[in-house]
Amino acid sequence: MKAGGPELEWLDGGITAVPGIFAAGLHGGIKPTPARDLALVYSSVPTTAAGVFTTNRIQGAPVKLSRERLRAGVAQAILASSGCSNVCTGEQGLRDAREMTDVVARELRIPEARVLVASTGIIGRYLPMDRIRPALPKLVKALSPQGSRHAAEGIMTTDSHPKEAALRVEIGGRPITLGAISKGTGMIHPMMATMFCFVATDLAVARDALQAAIRRAVTGSFNRISVDGDQSTSDTVVILANGLAENRPLTRGDRRLRAFQQALDALTQRLAVMQVRDGEGATCVIDVQVRGAKSRRDAEVAARAIANSNLFKTAMAGRDPNWGRVMAALGSCGVAVAEDRVGVWYGDEQVAAGGKPRDGVRWDRVKAELAKPDIVVALDLGLGTGHDHVWTCDLTADYVKINTGTS
Amino acid sequence: MKAGGPELEWLDGGITAVPGIFAAGLHGGIKPTPARDLALVYSSVPTTAAGVFTTNRIQGAPVKLSRERLRAGVAQAILASSGCSNVCTGEQGLRDAREMTDVVARELRIPEARVLVASTGIIGRYLPMDRIRPALPKLVKALSPQGSRHAAEGIMTTDSHPKEAALRVEIGGRPITLGAISKGTGMIHPMMATMFCFVATDLAVARDALQAAIRRAVTGSFNRISVDGDQSTSDTVVILANGLAENRPLTRGDRRLRAFQQALDALTQRLAVMQVRDGEGATCVIDVQVRGAKSRRDAEVAARAIANSNLFKTAMAGRDPNWGRVMAALGSCGVAVAEDRVGVWYGDEQVAAGGKPRDGVRWDRVKAELAKPDIVVALDLGLGTGHDHVWTCDLTADYVKINTGTS
Repeated sequence: MKAGGPELEWLDGGITAVPGIFAAGLHGGIKPTPARDLALVYSSVPTTAAGVFTTNRIQGAPVKLSRERLRAGVAQAILASSGCSNVCTGEQGLRDAREMTDVVARELRIPEARVLVASTGIIGRYLPMDRIRPALPKLVKALSPQGSRHAAEGIMTTDSHPKEAALRVEIGGRPITLGAISKGTGMIHPMMATMFCFVATDLAVARDALQAAIRRAVTGSFNRISVDGDQSTSDTVVILANGLAENRPLTRGDRRLRAFQQALDALTQRLAVMQVRDGEGATCVIDVQVRGAKSRRDAEVAARAIANSNLFKTAMAGRDPNWGRVMAALGSCGVAVAEDRVGVWYGDEQVAAGGKPRDGVRWDRVKAELAKPDIVVALDLGLGTGHDHVWTCDLTADYVKINTGTS
Repeated sequence: MKAGGPELEWLDGGITAVPGIFAAGLHGGIKPTPARDLALVYSSVPTTAAGVFTTNRIQGAPVKLSRERLRAGVAQAILASSGCSNVCTGEQGLRDAREMTDVVARELRIPEARVLVASTGIIGRYLPMDRIRPALPKLVKALSPQGSRHAAEGIMTTDSHPKEAALRVEIGGRPITLGAISKGTGMIHPMMATMFCFVATDLAVARDALQAAIRRAVTGSFNRISVDGDQSTSDTVVILANGLAENRPLTRGDRRLRAFQQALDALTQRLAVMQVRDGEGATCVIDVQVRGAKSRRDAEVAARAIANSNLFKTAMAGRDPNWGRVMAALGSCGVAVAEDRVGVWYGDEQVAAGGKPRDGVRWDRVKAELAKPDIVVALDLGLGTGHDHVWTCDLTADYVKINTGTS
């Protein structure tokens, strides 16, 4: 996205666009409907693996198990399920998560320690193992080099459609492919959300460089989106690098890492914005941009406060340029603010200057900005050079309806 | 409310139940409808006065002016308006606020420094002074010892009904009256909200003792409610003590202050719960109680996190005992949590123990609790003796509808 970056060629398909990556998704009896609720991603060869998980202090059994297994830095498969998160399920939950990976490992004839697991859905329920157990061999049999979409469907909860993306980028003179699937449209908050993103690449790269790259990509993508301010107990981002591109492996400090980082950033940001656009009940994506803050951290805190304000988000649902609600959220978030220096813009049109209404606002331009599917709301605090941004969506009555259903 | 407290006799009426207190409310042309939008509270004699204001860094002109005037500790009238908050209005806003108090002071023949002012409504608009100016003398003429309800109506914005309360309590052998009006059902958050509460009493009490008492009362009432997690730029709580009870004045350290504090706490808590019950779109009041935390502060942070979780609040709108959302909010708020020690209750019925589903839950009892207008959701963190609570309400599609209307 930045000037001077490598050329990115977007591809059709998702995670299986990557050589050696197979995927599958099917209905295993977790969801009450016949929708797919199991997904599997598999690499034909062992991969270097890295991941980022929820910072919630309550963490699901799958998060605990995958985090532990990722310490070795090697993985070959990711098993995911939707409909029941296997969170707040104690020892039984850990046994269930382990058994799921055992069955899959046996079918794939790989060590169980190379199978990661992720589950999303309702908290505080045990997995229906009687139904899952016999479905897993079928899931392994369904693995296909065109299986990305089925896997993307298998991890959906309140998503209205599956999310996948893939791109090709030249790194050190070689074409490298990155592909991913993701999910998550509610409980989306600062530090990730009930969201999964599974990324694969055929790049050969060292473990620590891969871990640093995925962490940095998450910071600029899934940690910059907000749907409802709630944080999940199951957030999982995993990247598998199988090295089938046979490039000279990238290690920390390698200059080729810059192009890889930019490609990974672009891929994860595309999926992150897809998630916000599909946010529960959302009708628009809003990029809340704060500049002129005392520090980058201040800009981030302010952008998050506005992006999470129910009053700002409901105003946006009504396409109402009620910048007073922006000011109220700004003033309450604790960062340095000089009221008489604050400017507010909708798109390119400034509506407030020096902390008060600006004369001669061209409201037709504000209206045109608000009619777009991607709206920019920008603030200049007039105090320094700190800037940051957060993507959010509007808050509609549909969000409430989606989340009110009895469990 | 606590055992051993003084006997409280609840009275009909509101702030004008207090001897020497007059009030009025009428339509002055701020709101587009013919609803009352101006309110005045007046004491026939000068009063000791104290107040608590919003902590938002963006503060309305009325807040700035009243805060300054309260430094003297003497006041005799509170002028309030609704429909336009006079926030983010720069120097013009300050001039307007001052002019409003000047007109009222002249009509009342008191020094303008004794008139406090408070405005609530949309941010970033100038007050329609051309319409307000001629309405103010009429407002003064309308002052009446039965005017509490009209004044309570004059401060309403999205409130569905006016809020007032009064009580009598014996302090040092003398009957003392306290009366109040309040407003505010949205932008209600931790540190107060778009909320006003004006309290009057005929007690004779020193300024510093009064200030300490109102601050303590606010901590346990308006700072323990949450509707939408948004914080206003105009929050104002003011107490006027006119001394007409002719008691020996209470000063700091006086043992009689205990009874006064308990009466003031009961009055402000009653109004605070009224506000939550009238929360925008709300259908129930939920008392989120946290005990067993490592510290009181941890308990407060946890209770607030749950009370502000959109997912918890939408679940409650569906009367869904989805305690997983309680756990997710708890885990994300940063306080010390040991997952395997957490218990969750709806009313008296425990649904989770040791961080997982409890066997033998009597779901009919949970259902009965959820059918009440006042629901208790309690957590025991099992780590210490810290406890606190926050009142909140559910989040319904009506909240969104109320806040989506274009301004």
